Amino acid sequence: VIRLFVTDELAVGRAIGLSGPHAHYLIDVMRLKAGAQVLAFNGVDGEWRARLARVSKDTWSLFPDAMERPQAGGPDLELLIALIRKPRLETVVEKAAELGARRVGLVRTGRTSPGGANLSRLTAIAAEAAEQTGALAVPEIIAPMALGEVLAAWGGERRLMFCDEAGDAPGVLEALKGSEPAAGWTILIGPEGGFCAAERALIRGAPGVVPVGLGPRILRADTAAIAAMTLWQAALGDWRGA
Amino acid sequence: VIRLFVTDELAVGRAIGLSGPHAHYLIDVMRLKAGAQVLAFNGVDGEWRARLARVSKDTWSLFPDAMERPQAGGPDLELLIALIRKPRLETVVEKAAELGARRVGLVRTGRTSPGGANLSRLTAIAAEAAEQTGALAVPEIIAPMALGEVLAAWGGERRLMFCDEAGDAPGVLEALKGSEPAAGWTILIGPEGGFCAAERALIRGAPGVVPVGLGPRILRADTAAIAAMTLWQAALGDWRGA
Repeated sequence: VIRLFVTDELAVGRAIGLSGPHAHYLIDVMRLKAGAQVLAFNGVDGEWRARLARVSKDTWSLFPDAMERPQAGGPDLELLIALIRKPRLETVVEKAAELGARRVGLVRTGRTSPGGANLSRLTAIAAEAAEQTGALAVPEIIAPMALGEVLAAWGGERRLMFCDEAGDAPGVLEALKGSEPAAGWTILIGPEGGFCAAERALIRGAPGVVPVGLGPRILRADTAAIAAMTLWQAALGDWRGA
Repeated sequence: VIRLFVTDELAVGRAIGLSGPHAHYLIDVMRLKAGAQVLAFNGVDGEWRARLARVSKDTWSLFPDAMERPQAGGPDLELLIALIRKPRLETVVEKAAELGARRVGLVRTGRTSPGGANLSRLTAIAAEAAEQTGALAVPEIIAPMALGEVLAAWGGERRLMFCDEAGDAPGVLEALKGSEPAAGWTILIGPEGGFCAAERALIRGAPGVVPVGLGPRILRADTAAIAAMTLWQAALGDWRGA
């Protein structure tokens, strides 16, 4: 069954106008006809069964019929990752959607290159991953900020899991033992080449920081991000038990 | 420092003839001159400092000078993954090298498409990942076999961690609690769309099988493979503690 991430409210009787790309995908690519059923979710209202209808010559809408699955809260996991090269950043965003992160924030550090990030493309990648893997929400992609700025505003209400490749931090499972998922966690991943010494000191001094190691080998930034999200979900998130 | 995976023995005084691609990379791309130092490893003899030398007009060799790091054994982790589409399979092989798998075997299942795999390209990807992330070995890539054939020959000396997306298996950390890494483990990952019911029954009946779940969301096959290798390393492998 086709699943679509939409930004409109999902409720019985509220028509959802299909965007150009969604209409093209359903009508031209998947060759659906009026009356066909799809699943729609918006990250808030759960997953809905919806009917495709043609409202004018070139305009198609979805009509939600019934909720199939209620919105599940899920743990408050955020990924904060240095601006790495595009293909690897895209992999990270796709995997963050599959692994249940709520937000992906991008940070500039001493060793990131100056370029920006295409936020709408990253959002589209996250949405597609969520559509194809049965997720009920799409991580929000947050525009790049300077690391110093992020840390200066860090109040410590959220815990900060700092993936420190310098090698003296305990493993994730050991470091998280006895912790609570309660107020939300942010995982911080540096660029290829790592954080510089001054940045590491600044991060380690932030309130609520928990430094962790990711094994004896060097990992690329995308691998580190995926591994860290996985271990967090297994230790404190919704992978526990089941 | 440039690191090279070589297939020759590494010992003082034994010249290593450079292959075309290695010579091109060192001389034309990185512009190294005779006398330059690189690091070389072959998965057996540890990591060696080696000197670049020109032995004739178009022939370059490496001369190992001294061992920098001895070969580390590392846990006996193998990944067995259904033949998935090329870009995702390449991601898996790259990540298997970073995450310390010894072998990546490919299996055909009811839901894999008939095509093959380019083993030499996959091996080159694994070697590059190992070179760039400080690993001392490159996972061996094993040609596709039928799932039934693999299971028929499965003696149970190795444990088989079966990533079963059907949803009733315990989480990896729970399932592995109290297990030993001793005789080696193989992680089995199915194709997009999963194993069929008959295959699942066959796998669950194999000797030494440990079914595990990977959280409440559906994961793509590449994500499942990376997550499973990460959790195995944290629970039973060389990520424990540090």
